[in-house]
Amino acid sequence: MRLDPVLARIDSDLPEALERLMALLRIPSISTDPAFKPDCARAADWLVADLQSLGFDAAARPTPGHPMVVAHGGEGGPHLLFYGHYDVQPVDPLNLWDRDPFDPELQDTPKGKVIRARGASDDKGQLMTFLEALRAWKSVHGSLPCRLTIFLEGEEESGSPSLIPFLQENKAELQADLAMICDTGLFQDTAPAIVTMLRGLLGEEITIHAANKDLHSGMFGGLAQNPLRVLSRILANMHDESGRITIPGFYDGVTELPEAIRAQWQALAFDHAKFLGDVGLALPAGEIDRTPLEMIWSRPTAEINGLWGGYTGDGFKTVLPAQAHAKVSFRLVGDQAPQAIRAAFRDWVRAQLPGDCTAEFADHGASPAGMMQITHPAFEAARAAMADEWGRAAAYVGCGGSIPIAGYFKTHLGMDAMLLGFGRDDDQIHSPNEKYDLECFHKGIRSWARLLDRLA
Amino acid sequence: MRLDPVLARIDSDLPEALERLMALLRIPSISTDPAFKPDCARAADWLVADLQSLGFDAAARPTPGHPMVVAHGGEGGPHLLFYGHYDVQPVDPLNLWDRDPFDPELQDTPKGKVIRARGASDDKGQLMTFLEALRAWKSVHGSLPCRLTIFLEGEEESGSPSLIPFLQENKAELQADLAMICDTGLFQDTAPAIVTMLRGLLGEEITIHAANKDLHSGMFGGLAQNPLRVLSRILANMHDESGRITIPGFYDGVTELPEAIRAQWQALAFDHAKFLGDVGLALPAGEIDRTPLEMIWSRPTAEINGLWGGYTGDGFKTVLPAQAHAKVSFRLVGDQAPQAIRAAFRDWVRAQLPGDCTAEFADHGASPAGMMQITHPAFEAARAAMADEWGRAAAYVGCGGSIPIAGYFKTHLGMDAMLLGFGRDDDQIHSPNEKYDLECFHKGIRSWARLLDRLA
Repeated sequence: MRLDPVLARIDSDLPEALERLMALLRIPSISTDPAFKPDCARAADWLVADLQSLGFDAAARPTPGHPMVVAHGGEGGPHLLFYGHYDVQPVDPLNLWDRDPFDPELQDTPKGKVIRARGASDDKGQLMTFLEALRAWKSVHGSLPCRLTIFLEGEEESGSPSLIPFLQENKAELQADLAMICDTGLFQDTAPAIVTMLRGLLGEEITIHAANKDLHSGMFGGLAQNPLRVLSRILANMHDESGRITIPGFYDGVTELPEAIRAQWQALAFDHAKFLGDVGLALPAGEIDRTPLEMIWSRPTAEINGLWGGYTGDGFKTVLPAQAHAKVSFRLVGDQAPQAIRAAFRDWVRAQLPGDCTAEFADHGASPAGMMQITHPAFEAARAAMADEWGRAAAYVGCGGSIPIAGYFKTHLGMDAMLLGFGRDDDQIHSPNEKYDLECFHKGIRSWARLLDRLA
Repeated sequence: MRLDPVLARIDSDLPEALERLMALLRIPSISTDPAFKPDCARAADWLVADLQSLGFDAAARPTPGHPMVVAHGGEGGPHLLFYGHYDVQPVDPLNLWDRDPFDPELQDTPKGKVIRARGASDDKGQLMTFLEALRAWKSVHGSLPCRLTIFLEGEEESGSPSLIPFLQENKAELQADLAMICDTGLFQDTAPAIVTMLRGLLGEEITIHAANKDLHSGMFGGLAQNPLRVLSRILANMHDESGRITIPGFYDGVTELPEAIRAQWQALAFDHAKFLGDVGLALPAGEIDRTPLEMIWSRPTAEINGLWGGYTGDGFKTVLPAQAHAKVSFRLVGDQAPQAIRAAFRDWVRAQLPGDCTAEFADHGASPAGMMQITHPAFEAARAAMADEWGRAAAYVGCGGSIPIAGYFKTHLGMDAMLLGFGRDDDQIHSPNEKYDLECFHKGIRSWARLLDRLA
C-alpha cells in the first residue's frame, strides 16, 4: 500500500523527471578530454544540488581527476550504496550524429519514444532512474525509504584513475550492506536481468626469438627456425578439436552452472542466431558441448587478440624474421586463479619451443572472475521487483566482459554488489546518436521504487 | 701452350687492370636514384669505350631506364654471351663507410689486399675479370678467342624494369650457345663453385575473414570465430612432425639429387655450424632426413614471411578481429609447377576453413626452379678450369635464392646459362665498406682465361 502512491507519483511526474535528465544531459561532461574538466565539475555540482534537494548530505569530493559525488541520507535498514557515473564518452565522429549530442531531444521513433543525447543511456539516464525513484518516495512518504549512500563517479569512461585510491581512503565512509550498480541493461531488450557472473581477464604477450637478425628466406629458408611458424604451431595447440583449452590445469576452479541458473538461462531463449547474425556470423564456435550462453557467460576462453611478425606491408619480402609476437587473453570464470594460469601458460609455451628458440613474456594484467553472492536476500527481492514491473521473469545472467567496479567494491570495501540496469542493446552507447528509451527510463524508475519497497 | 703466355700477361698487367677497375669504380652508377642517371650513362660509355679498345663492335643502347651495353666480337665457335651489370647499390648509411664509397683504394688487411669501394665485388670487379681476360688474350694472340657477345645491364640493382622488353626486342641479336653470368661467389670463401640449381619462388597472401566487423572478446569471445586462431591452425598444419610440407601434391616434380652432385656437395664439407652460428642459431630445422645443404639448395620450402591481425600496438585490446593475414612463400625445386602449387595451396586452405570463415588470396608472383643443363660441355670445362686455377675441386652447387637473369635467358632467349663468380661471403655487397679481394680479381681473370682456352 505504500508502493502504489509512489508508482502513481512517478507516472505523473515523468515530464518533470525528463526535464531534469535533459538538464544533466546538456552538460558535456566528457571525462577523457581535459577541455571538458569544468563541465565535469558542473555535472558533479548539479548532482550534489539535486541530492541535497532530496535531503541528502551531499558533496563533490575532489580527486586528482574529476570529483566524486558522495551523499548520505535516510535511516533504517538495510544500508544500500548506489553507484553510477556522470561522465560520458567523447562524441566524435561528430558528423555521424543527427543533432548536437549535448542538445537532448525526446524523439518519436518506430520503436517508441527515445531520449537522444550523449550519456542518455550511459550512464546519466540510468543513474537518474534511482534518484527519481527516491524523489517520488520522498514526496509521497516524506522521507527516504532506508539508509542510503549515493556514490557517483566522474571518470568511468576514462579508466577510473582516482577510483581505487578514493575507495581506500574513504573505506569506512563508503561501507554499506550491499552496492547496487546501475550501468547494465535488459537481456535482449525485453527480459529484466541481474548480472551475477562476470568473467575475469588475463592478458599475456609472447615474443618468440630465433636468429639474432632477420634472415633471407632464400639463403636460410628450410634450414633456420622461423619464429612465425613456431608461434603459429604453439597457438594452434591452445585448443583441441572439441574447443577445449589444452593448457594443463587451465580448468582448475571452473565450476559448473547451478541447475537453478541453468533453468533461468534456458527460459531466456537466447536468440544466438540473431546475436551472431548481427555481426555476419551463423555458428557457435566454442566448445562443442556447451550452449551459446555458456560460451559467453560461464565458460573460460583463450583468444589471440593480436598477432604480428615479419613483413606486413604492401608487396612481398622473403624474410625469416628474428621474432614473432602475439597478444593472448583468457576470460576466466569461477575460482580460476589468474596468476596460476599465467604461470601454466608460460610453462606450456616454453615446453613447446624447439631448439634455437626462446620465449619472452609480458604481463598485461589479470583480474579474477566475479560471482555475486546471490544468497543475499536483496537478489531475490530484485528478481521479484523486476518481474513485477516488466511482466516477465527476471534472470540472473552472466556478462562476458568485465565491469571492474563490482570487483573493486568487493576487494577494497569487502562489499557485495548487484548489477541492475535498464539499457537496451540498440542504445548506441559510445557511438553516435546514443539514446535511452523513454520506456526504460520510466520503468527503470518504477523498478527501483518496487525494489526499495521490498528491501526497506 | 697458348694459355701460359696469357696467364703470364695477366700477372704482369695486374697493376694496370686494377687501375682500369678503379676508374670504373669512381663512377657512382647508382641505378635506383634518378640523381645518378648521368653517372649510369657515363659508366655505360666507359665500358663501350673499353670494349671498343678490345676490338668489339660496342654500343650503349637506350632503354626507358639506364642503357644496356651490347658488344659483339671475335670469330669461331662456340658463341658465348657474357652477362654482368655496371650499376651499383645505394651507399647509405654513408656514416658507416670508412671512406668515400666512390674513391676506391687498395688496402692491406689481415686477410690480404682488398679493393675497397661500392661495386668492387657487385658487380664491377666481377665483370672486369672477364674483360681483362679478353684483353690479355687479345694482346698475346692478336684476336679474341671465339665469337663473343657482351651484355652489361645498368638496372640490376633496381629491379631490371627494362630487361625483359630488351631481351624480347633483341632476341635474335642476343642469341648465343651459352650465357655466362658473373654475379656469384666462391663456396664458403675458398671452393670454386658453379651454380647449377636455383630455387624458384611462389608468393601468396591469405586473408581469413570471419565477422563483418571487429568484435569485443568479452561479448563474443568463446562464441564467435576468431580468424587469428583459424589462420594459426592452418599455418601450423603446413608442416608435419618430420618437417615435410603437407599440401597435397606439393612434392610432385621434386627430383632427388643425382649421386654425382651429392658426392660433390659432401666433398664441400659445408660448415653448417658456422653458417648458423653467425646468425645466432645452432640446429638445422628443416626436414629431419635431409642434410643442411639439401635444406637450402635442393629441397622445397614453405615459409611464413609475414603474419598480422588484431591489435599489435602498445598495451592490450581485447579484440576479436574481423580478419587475419599472412604472407607465405614457397621455394621450389626441380620441376615443381608454381601455378599448380598455388592452386593446391588455396584448395588446401579452403578445405580447412570452419563455418563462418572465408579465405581471400593475393598472388605475389611465381617463378619455377632453375636447373642448368650441366650436360653442356662448357660445364665440365668450367669445373676443370676452376680446379686448375684454385687448386681445389670445383663443385656444382645450388643457390637457395633466386637469380632471375638465368631464368630470363632461358625463357626469353631459349639460352642455357652458367653462373660462375669469385665473390666472397665477407664482401659486404649492398652494405657499407664493400670490398673485393685482389686475389679474387686476379684469379678470377686467370679463371676466365683458362675456361676460354678450354672452350675456344
